[in-house]
Amino acid sequence: MAHESQDTISIGDYLLERLSQIGVQSLFGVPGDFNLACDLVEDHPNIDWIGNCNELNAAYAADGYARVKHGSIGAVLTTFGVGELSAINGIAGAFSEHVPVVHIVGVPSTEQQTDKPMLHHTLGDGRYDAYLKAAQQVTWSQGAIFSTNTAASEIDRVLTDCITSARPVYLTLPTDRVFTKIPRGKLDTPLLPHPPKNDPDTEEFALNEIQTLVEQAGSEVVILVDACTIRHDVTEEVWELIQRTGFPVYSAPMGKTAVPEDFERYGGIYVGSLSHPEIKEKVENAKLVLSIGGLRSDFNTGNFTYRTSRATTVELHSDHTRVRYALYPGLGMKQLLPKLTHRLHPLNSPASAASVPPFRAILPKTGEDPLGEEVISHLYFWPRISQFVRPEDVVVTETGTSSFGALEMPLPAKTIYVSQILWGSIGWATGATLGAALAARERGLKGRTLLFTGEGSLQLTVQEFSTAMRHGLTPILFILNNRGYTIERHLHGMDRKYNDVVNWKWTQLLDSYTVHTKSELDALLKDESFANATGIQLVEVVMDKYDAPVPLLRQTELSGQTNHYAA
Amino acid sequence: MAHESQDTISIGDYLLERLSQIGVQSLFGVPGDFNLACDLVEDHPNIDWIGNCNELNAAYAADGYARVKHGSIGAVLTTFGVGELSAINGIAGAFSEHVPVVHIVGVPSTEQQTDKPMLHHTLGDGRYDAYLKAAQQVTWSQGAIFSTNTAASEIDRVLTDCITSARPVYLTLPTDRVFTKIPRGKLDTPLLPHPPKNDPDTEEFALNEIQTLVEQAGSEVVILVDACTIRHDVTEEVWELIQRTGFPVYSAPMGKTAVPEDFERYGGIYVGSLSHPEIKEKVENAKLVLSIGGLRSDFNTGNFTYRTSRATTVELHSDHTRVRYALYPGLGMKQLLPKLTHRLHPLNSPASAASVPPFRAILPKTGEDPLGEEVISHLYFWPRISQFVRPEDVVVTETGTSSFGALEMPLPAKTIYVSQILWGSIGWATGATLGAALAARERGLKGRTLLFTGEGSLQLTVQEFSTAMRHGLTPILFILNNRGYTIERHLHGMDRKYNDVVNWKWTQLLDSYTVHTKSELDALLKDESFANATGIQLVEVVMDKYDAPVPLLRQTELSGQTNHYAA
Repeated sequence: MAHESQDTISIGDYLLERLSQIGVQSLFGVPGDFNLACDLVEDHPNIDWIGNCNELNAAYAADGYARVKHGSIGAVLTTFGVGELSAINGIAGAFSEHVPVVHIVGVPSTEQQTDKPMLHHTLGDGRYDAYLKAAQQVTWSQGAIFSTNTAASEIDRVLTDCITSARPVYLTLPTDRVFTKIPRGKLDTPLLPHPPKNDPDTEEFALNEIQTLVEQAGSEVVILVDACTIRHDVTEEVWELIQRTGFPVYSAPMGKTAVPEDFERYGGIYVGSLSHPEIKEKVENAKLVLSIGGLRSDFNTGNFTYRTSRATTVELHSDHTRVRYALYPGLGMKQLLPKLTHRLHPLNSPASAASVPPFRAILPKTGEDPLGEEVISHLYFWPRISQFVRPEDVVVTETGTSSFGALEMPLPAKTIYVSQILWGSIGWATGATLGAALAARERGLKGRTLLFTGEGSLQLTVQEFSTAMRHGLTPILFILNNRGYTIERHLHGMDRKYNDVVNWKWTQLLDSYTVHTKSELDALLKDESFANATGIQLVEVVMDKYDAPVPLLRQTELSGQTNHYAA
Repeated sequence: MAHESQDTISIGDYLLERLSQIGVQSLFGVPGDFNLACDLVEDHPNIDWIGNCNELNAAYAADGYARVKHGSIGAVLTTFGVGELSAINGIAGAFSEHVPVVHIVGVPSTEQQTDKPMLHHTLGDGRYDAYLKAAQQVTWSQGAIFSTNTAASEIDRVLTDCITSARPVYLTLPTDRVFTKIPRGKLDTPLLPHPPKNDPDTEEFALNEIQTLVEQAGSEVVILVDACTIRHDVTEEVWELIQRTGFPVYSAPMGKTAVPEDFERYGGIYVGSLSHPEIKEKVENAKLVLSIGGLRSDFNTGNFTYRTSRATTVELHSDHTRVRYALYPGLGMKQLLPKLTHRLHPLNSPASAASVPPFRAILPKTGEDPLGEEVISHLYFWPRISQFVRPEDVVVTETGTSSFGALEMPLPAKTIYVSQILWGSIGWATGATLGAALAARERGLKGRTLLFTGEGSLQLTVQEFSTAMRHGLTPILFILNNRGYTIERHLHGMDRKYNDVVNWKWTQLLDSYTVHTKSELDALLKDESFANATGIQLVEVVMDKYDAPVPLLRQTELSGQTNHYAA
């Protein structure tokens, strides 16, 4: 082993080895002339080159991959200037939503970076640092391979930042460094997340404070889980907490499936004024809310309509804690949570016996659906899909209608729910589905990957279905087609004929179905050959043009005006 | 009129009026929730909302539009964060290639920009200036509508910068300012380019220097026109110069069609070592090269293989002049050129009588084509297309094979040639074709819009054909399909089956033709119903997998190795 550590490895292969060590098996991207690393990827035994249709789709796919491949990261490789800038919206989304992705950019040689000739893919004015400056805005840290001596430590630094921060990082790899040999010794030491240690005295003090508040609140404690529970890897710690305390637990939209939705102490989605009235009452009347991994964006809070008070809230975050009004910087939940569970579980609080309204899919009974017994209403669709979803399925919803609809769709245990509620980039879900399906296959999940998107969102990134086909993936793609009109209004000036054409083409390409009625949808979902998803399948779901999911209708009622996200 | 000047107009409409005044009739983009200006566009009598499939395509289209709509600019409207970042690669390309485009971004209200809530499309950390900082890297100037008092002057400032610099600019428009009324008085004064004035003494000095050099060079003067001749609007001044002096004139690839290619004193394309040997000899042996609007990027100079010396070169640029080794900052060619023509035309230099090899399309004679009489070789294709092109056609070539091939394709007078040789972003040409075709229609050009691209490039932005169809445009789309293999090698790891699928789909959608042989291609090009382009048409041109255009083959011969841009 000592001898082996003295061996050398090319810088490009060192990077791939590090990616492989942290679980990366699929590398997304588009080749380019400064991207010599592609050759190494092809030869790598553990990493597949995915080869996307374009760079934005590749970044979306890397994001979707990271969300499903827990404990690993997404990786995307693009070329200097043209490629990396095409991907930047996808990278920014990963930053916004706390998704660990490494963006590797093949750049001109170190000599060219010094001499700055007017190469293609440059801005023509010698500014070779312009793209880095753009990347600094949307990535957690940035690294540049330049000196051979520091290459390994630079790679290790940015990848450690990536897994520690759960945010995207940026790394440039010059053409003349890809094949340069360096010692491989560092590879013997695996990379690990490197969060700062909690200060013991501060931690003890905060735990006392929290314990006191819980005791004072008695039976009226609720736990609210959110995005960063998943993104900062505390789902197991939270599961331990809620099982051992028995406190009622609710989820914000971005925390959906952080807690198994069929868990007896789980009450459903809290989203401010858009919540079910019963959930709203339970959460907002609690004497204490233990908020875990909260990300209080507009769409994640019913447009900032939380009626919880800081006076009755404890917030646990990845890098700080807040107990009522007091802030504890640097006190992270990963280390705090097990100690909190240890403190709270013996309390035998009456909260553990408080009733929790079950979160179950409820199909409208005959006569209950305002749209009648035939039309596939949102009122029917989401609960019906809820019954269709199996454990270990991955469910991807596009921003807008589908992510609102999903709030009415309880999911079985071990389902992974993926959406982009804060960043909200339309077209994201199509690319993310590719990455999610690859990660699910690599994890050996027994379920299927289900995409819910709209005809309007589809056109932004539609070509990426072909990549899924090429890699033998078998997602089921539900395209919600509200007869063209709603999306058209949303997209201003798009006429129906065009939408028809687009729909026709993609339904021609794939094994596809169009369902117009509840009974057609029901029959399709019951069909085992469909449900087992042995090939890629597209389902066009024809819906009423004015219909919208219940949380959107609720928002419309509340605000007295049409919400333009209803599209 | 005095009364009318006192009238008010909404800020959004003020912006649209300014765009309309400078000739914008098509506004590209994708709507978003912060993009209230879309409503105003729909109501505007002179500006059409194009409604692209995604933002990158929209930016490419705006770029293509600006290149064809001489004297006007391209305009693209996107939404905060997600939309603008998706477009940024297209904007950067416009910067690199000196194309005037205004990128208008609908952003949150001024109150939200001050309070910085965690809105969707934000990075979640309150940095509302992150996207501006990214835009600063790739735009000439940036403006933000904030105060009502300064809105008009801010709009005027960035648009004046756009038309003066021939570069993209960035303008944010908050939701709460779109409908705010301001005085419309400023609209009575049209916006004009505002280049700095040349210093008269410096100009006189430089003109003397140039005149002396021309006199000394006698019969061995050549003019070399390049990109910025077109982009900085001196084609008329140059036309005057070359007509009145009769000096032989050549063009760099990026200057193609700056001078009519059937002009008797025009000798073709000079691209360093990739040039025809006769052209190379004429240019490199000249005693003086008058270089106009040069942009000496790698692909524009045969990978920096100019064998011309600074000692025998005069360079005229938009914002500086260089006479041999001496730099004259601030001395711009727009004002200098007419005076130079005035100085030089009476010289009656022997250069005016020097022979110029004609630049003509030469089809391989029977037995001359190494690939035989049947296969559609590059040796045959480009000269044959040359015969097909008509005056007032717009010819768009994708980076790579097609833009190399176009060097072997003389074009008739009044043809507009559009390519992206410096920035070189694959997929650009498809989006640019949409914009180019719209601009051509608005200009009333009698020709057609012809796209030359490859099957690999096509997949990046293919959905934008649907926008062209929706707007009743009738481009002819030549898809060079070298049997899948070359592009696959270029794109690493793409298997043939997938490419077949993509091709099949798009040929199904459009009125389409596949040609396998020279005679099939020839018959199609001779077919008047095809050539008159009354509907959108797609031609799949099946070519040999190892074939490449002559300039690429020449480069391979020179360098003794396969150039990977051959794909």
